[in-house]
Amino acid sequence: MNINSDLEGMQLALQWAEKGLYTTSPNPRIGCVIVRDGVVIGEGVTQAAGQDHAEIQAIKDAQRRGHDVRGATAYVTLEPCSHHGRTPPCADALVREGLGRVVAAMEDPNPLVAGNGMARLSAAGIQVSSGLLAEQAYEMNIGFFHRMRHGLPWVRMKTAASLDGMTALHNGQSQWITGPEARADGHAWRARACAILSGIGTVKADDPQLNVRAVDTPRQPRRIVVDSKLEISPQARVLQGGGTWIIAAAHHAEKEAALRDLGAEVIVLPNAHGKVDLPELMRELGRRQINELHVEAGGKLNGSMIREGCVNELLVYLAPTLLGDAQGMFALPALTELSGRHNLKFHEVKQVGADLRILARFTPH
Amino acid sequence: MNINSDLEGMQLALQWAEKGLYTTSPNPRIGCVIVRDGVVIGEGVTQAAGQDHAEIQAIKDAQRRGHDVRGATAYVTLEPCSHHGRTPPCADALVREGLGRVVAAMEDPNPLVAGNGMARLSAAGIQVSSGLLAEQAYEMNIGFFHRMRHGLPWVRMKTAASLDGMTALHNGQSQWITGPEARADGHAWRARACAILSGIGTVKADDPQLNVRAVDTPRQPRRIVVDSKLEISPQARVLQGGGTWIIAAAHHAEKEAALRDLGAEVIVLPNAHGKVDLPELMRELGRRQINELHVEAGGKLNGSMIREGCVNELLVYLAPTLLGDAQGMFALPALTELSGRHNLKFHEVKQVGADLRILARFTPH
Repeated sequence: MNINSDLEGMQLALQWAEKGLYTTSPNPRIGCVIVRDGVVIGEGVTQAAGQDHAEIQAIKDAQRRGHDVRGATAYVTLEPCSHHGRTPPCADALVREGLGRVVAAMEDPNPLVAGNGMARLSAAGIQVSSGLLAEQAYEMNIGFFHRMRHGLPWVRMKTAASLDGMTALHNGQSQWITGPEARADGHAWRARACAILSGIGTVKADDPQLNVRAVDTPRQPRRIVVDSKLEISPQARVLQGGGTWIIAAAHHAEKEAALRDLGAEVIVLPNAHGKVDLPELMRELGRRQINELHVEAGGKLNGSMIREGCVNELLVYLAPTLLGDAQGMFALPALTELSGRHNLKFHEVKQVGADLRILARFTPH
Repeated sequence: MNINSDLEGMQLALQWAEKGLYTTSPNPRIGCVIVRDGVVIGEGVTQAAGQDHAEIQAIKDAQRRGHDVRGATAYVTLEPCSHHGRTPPCADALVREGLGRVVAAMEDPNPLVAGNGMARLSAAGIQVSSGLLAEQAYEMNIGFFHRMRHGLPWVRMKTAASLDGMTALHNGQSQWITGPEARADGHAWRARACAILSGIGTVKADDPQLNVRAVDTPRQPRRIVVDSKLEISPQARVLQGGGTWIIAAAHHAEKEAALRDLGAEVIVLPNAHGKVDLPELMRELGRRQINELHVEAGGKLNGSMIREGCVNELLVYLAPTLLGDAQGMFALPALTELSGRHNLKFHEVKQVGADLRILARFTPH
């Protein structure tokens, strides 16, 4: 494969990063491509936590293919690391292997490390630049960067509704409002998340598996259920296979023991009203290295999370249909002043099958 | 201006058609461009009813500019007419003036006349073809074609709502949910309609002018108010300037006389329930040569029109905000089965300022 410009080199590096979309958690998905004289000689993507970063993979790939990386250009979707984490610094490896030039899509947004990797490369005589396709590189790891900066996951709330904003009839009927393409697309968003969160209402009503089925993934996201009173049935499908986190507002030794026997973990995080403290839950998930949290819940939990400022973006699938008087997307109280509304910004709109997919981000009040 | 292909010729003809968007009613907006040896020698657009069609305008334009149209190619956005209406047939004029070739975007969709104009040209030895950019040409006159085929206006219902489908708070507050760009865009849609329809609820609550202000137009659409019990105040702004049609469900001599004095016309169209017969109103508007009907009403009249099958498409502006428990777009009754929903198809989605504009068309049940 030939690379005729820095832009092409970075586009290929982003394609490699995307290969890590379902696997690198809690690490960011980073791609690296090494090019000499317009020819790609090495390619790599971040491996699972504790294993090689993309730069090391790309260097090893070049060596395996019999190429000398000295003087070559490395395109990498994030500034190479300069600190000893679970792996040695990638910047050191690039210096040691004698790369001639490093083009990074963006500097590390963590203010404590930003620019250190580039500085180390530059000090070693490597030509450096950054900022090419920075936005795409940022979006690819929005959860990781958000967690690094704020200690919180990036929370994406998914919902599917009719054009008049309804998710289900009053009697609960809701299957197949959106089409098969939208449902598959929704599973791709689940797959890239570190965890999928729902509420006990949805678990009782629909008994969901909360896993990824419609797309291929080698890794299933963590499943989380907000269940203040530990009402979940031991038969609930979300408990199958173990590893589910149940978030309660009070201890209940017997129920907790039964859930532990099923491989679940109970985390008790009460607020002053005897409900789950949702902002504290978000902080806890940040501490537990959840980068992107995918929320698929009912209108009630959705509304609580929005009201308590726990949601970063909405992923709304709108079906071309009108349901009339039915259940809304978010249980939010009636306002008396328009100034009390929750404002967002449309980030992306796309037709998916017969439906619309709208990604909208909350803006600060 | 040079024209290097039939496609370019037809694109220019469509641009001319668009110049008639606010003026030709109840005629369709048709553009015509005459080209010889790649040079545009004549251009025209349909004039107001009873005056020149586009082809005649283009021929006159060429002659005024000193060009001979013999042997030239005419690009026209609709098959030239072959019947004597308020003006003589355009096909005859093209034959008489000796055009060499006629390219039409589409045949007349009226099955009674389809192809007659092209046949007449062809019989006179003019080379003919049709179908180039047919969809754009159809959309430009969707109301006219719909009326020709079905005797009914094309009914476009405009609404503005929050992302969760709410148009106003329960206390009525609704101003400025969408931004200035969306409001101006909405006025452009008003301007192209033959008439704007609202209901007495909106007239009482907001006292709207129901006219075009945010875009320049030489012609104001007809204003129509559905007002079953003739409750409208003589001071209502929608009556100012006269010409407003008030649709009632029963006669009331005194009120009718007062409205007539204000230049309004009262049309009485009751149904069996003592309300306005909305399907019959649509037929009446078709008879009165309304091509595109622009509806801006409250949830109640919106819901009635949808339920009674009177609406062809929805023009929905969605603002990036959540209002929570508030007033919905369409008052439609609760369903017990999803199969009772009203299905549409997304036709076009566009970002307008900070808002989304969604055009969705109803599909047959």
